[in-house]
Amino acid sequence: MRLSYSSAVGFARAIDAVGNLVDEGQFKAKKEGLSLVAMDPSQISMVIFSMPKGIFSEYQSENEVLGLDIDYFKKVLRRGKTDEKITLETEENRLILTFEGGKRKRTFKIPLLDLTEGVSKEPSIEYNNRIKLVADALNELINDAKLISTHIRLVLTPDGLRAEVKSESGELNVDIEKDDEAVAEISVENGARASFPLQYLEDIMKAAKGTEPVTLYLETDRPLKLEYNIEGALAKYYLAPRIETE
Amino acid sequence: MRLSYSSAVGFARAIDAVGNLVDEGQFKAKKEGLSLVAMDPSQISMVIFSMPKGIFSEYQSENEVLGLDIDYFKKVLRRGKTDEKITLETEENRLILTFEGGKRKRTFKIPLLDLTEGVSKEPSIEYNNRIKLVADALNELINDAKLISTHIRLVLTPDGLRAEVKSESGELNVDIEKDDEAVAEISVENGARASFPLQYLEDIMKAAKGTEPVTLYLETDRPLKLEYNIEGALAKYYLAPRIETE
Amino acid sequence: MRLSYSSAVGFARAIDAVGNLVDEGQFKAKKEGLSLVAMDPSQISMVIFSMPKGIFSEYQSENEVLGLDIDYFKKVLRRGKTDEKITLETEENRLILTFEGGKRKRTFKIPLLDLTEGVSKEPSIEYNNRIKLVADALNELINDAKLISTHIRLVLTPDGLRAEVKSESGELNVDIEKDDEAVAEISVENGARASFPLQYLEDIMKAAKGTEPVTLYLETDRPLKLEYNIEGALAKYYLAPRIETE
Repeated sequence: MRLSYSSAVGFARAIDAVGNLVDEGQFKAKKEGLSLVAMDPSQISMVIFSMPKGIFSEYQSENEVLGLDIDYFKKVLRRGKTDEKITLETEENRLILTFEGGKRKRTFKIPLLDLTEGVSKEPSIEYNNRIKLVADALNELINDAKLISTHIRLVLTPDGLRAEVKSESGELNVDIEKDDEAVAEISVENGARASFPLQYLEDIMKAAKGTEPVTLYLETDRPLKLEYNIEGALAKYYLAPRIETE
Repeated sequence: MRLSYSSAVGFARAIDAVGNLVDEGQFKAKKEGLSLVAMDPSQISMVIFSMPKGIFSEYQSENEVLGLDIDYFKKVLRRGKTDEKITLETEENRLILTFEGGKRKRTFKIPLLDLTEGVSKEPSIEYNNRIKLVADALNELINDAKLISTHIRLVLTPDGLRAEVKSESGELNVDIEKDDEAVAEISVENGARASFPLQYLEDIMKAAKGTEPVTLYLETDRPLKLEYNIEGALAKYYLAPRIETE
Repeated sequence: MRLSYSSAVGFARAIDAVGNLVDEGQFKAKKEGLSLVAMDPSQISMVIFSMPKGIFSEYQSENEVLGLDIDYFKKVLRRGKTDEKITLETEENRLILTFEGGKRKRTFKIPLLDLTEGVSKEPSIEYNNRIKLVADALNELINDAKLISTHIRLVLTPDGLRAEVKSESGELNVDIEKDDEAVAEISVENGARASFPLQYLEDIMKAAKGTEPVTLYLETDRPLKLEYNIEGALAKYYLAPRIETE
């Protein structure tokens, strides 16, 4: 296996989309690209991450599996500098990461782990309600909501996205209307509402910043699907709802 | 009650002048403006804070009392963004804070507390010595002094302000002369000297920054009076002296 | 004794070159300049620091010894501001530090300690291999290496500097070739290799930043000698190698 990506910093950012949720996991370097499907340790959220072959400057692989301590992998990736490219190779039970820029070449070798593959299959849910908005609108919402509770209720209607948060500490209501400048697209059939744990939503969104668009798919009391592109990779998440019994 | 202030960020800054000293307190929304008189929990310092009606873009109130967890109030206020205005309303036993900017509207509702009113009366002391100087000159003094002791001795003479700090760790002397560029005004009758706990002085000054002017009123072994304007509000403080018995 | 240095901030930076390694120590204000020779508490590294008389704006001293809590000395020095000069004087068992800028004058007095002088003599080693490179190239190397181990192996050859780091966590190899833009000079006779503890190397380099040049002298399994100029002072270090027994 030999994969090169032209920006070491960009590659690190893309992997952040996985690493904020998953501690260790199996990347698969298939013919069509690099991917990872994993659930967080508490099995409340799932990430489906893929970097298509085409965004690499070099891509050679025959179905290799890379079991990695993702936290450590991320720390090594963060050593990449702006003007460097990164190359990933395997050598027996190790992953070789080479940073190259100017005259200098830095080579890290880190252990590949023998992980048992979890059974992670993408849920097949038909979503009829979605909204695409800039990442920071959602990030701000999460930060607002954290002041009040550990959960957030999202309500998607043809008029826009409404967030409702309630606890003994107080209450929060935010309306992001469909003609708000943060909203890029909205498509709502019957509308939907569901509650989600803020901590997971925050981890999912940690790699998405600024005005980069994020798409939310919502069905009443079903998992939230959230996806965004990051440095040419696609990060797709499912987050289990919190069913409120009253 | 309904009060609107054109800058949510500015309003948060003004409330910081209270919140660094007091954990919970009763704001009063009288006809003439919003105010709070409170002592810190250890009763060493008093803050008298007032925002006149005129600096609000909208002001309607008939003597309402708002008992608040000021620390939490501040956290919510900090969620305000640069281009937003803020509106405060009451609804039964809750305070409604609405941030509005562009198309978006965010509404926080936080509990009003049923606090017993402390007996806080502004001390009637006649001050004959005062100096007005830029906030950072005093802030720097506090930071210098903290390296040596937990108390600072302030000496005001017609020549300027002198700070003396002594402990086993060493000694500090700073002279801010009357023609120092940090001094805006000085008016000294007989001169005065007194010692004060640095931690309180630091909390009092936390909201005053940069070249904003601060006025100190000093009488020998009497409370320090310190006041400054912040975002149209007036923050006035009294700080008990430490009487040195030798 | 009376020493004045035109930039209080610059003086603080120079003393940082000592203070990151040594907790307390004896500065000597000899006729030719201010100096300190000390070993770190664990006796693994030695610093030989000197500020020649000529870089002071005023220098009067007859062999005074200043025993100092260097950590506290540094904290006081950090209170210096950009436009201030600093003057050091002794008064009985105290060191007087005066910061002056504009109209204001701040005087700190801190205790002089009665330290027993350690026997610190500069090792007499003949070095035949050296490389001069920008500080950040070495700083980056240290940060890379810390991800893998607590020690780093440096290999100096006519081709350049090679760093090798190995542990159970992985492996790192970095080549800084002789024509790398970070390399200012290289002079290698037979080549040399030795291993050093990263924590000490990091402390030694803490005051050296950016593109400032640093010279490394290396002999196989002998102490590393490292030196750099900082604000007109010369900071020279020796760091004991870690002898690997296999």
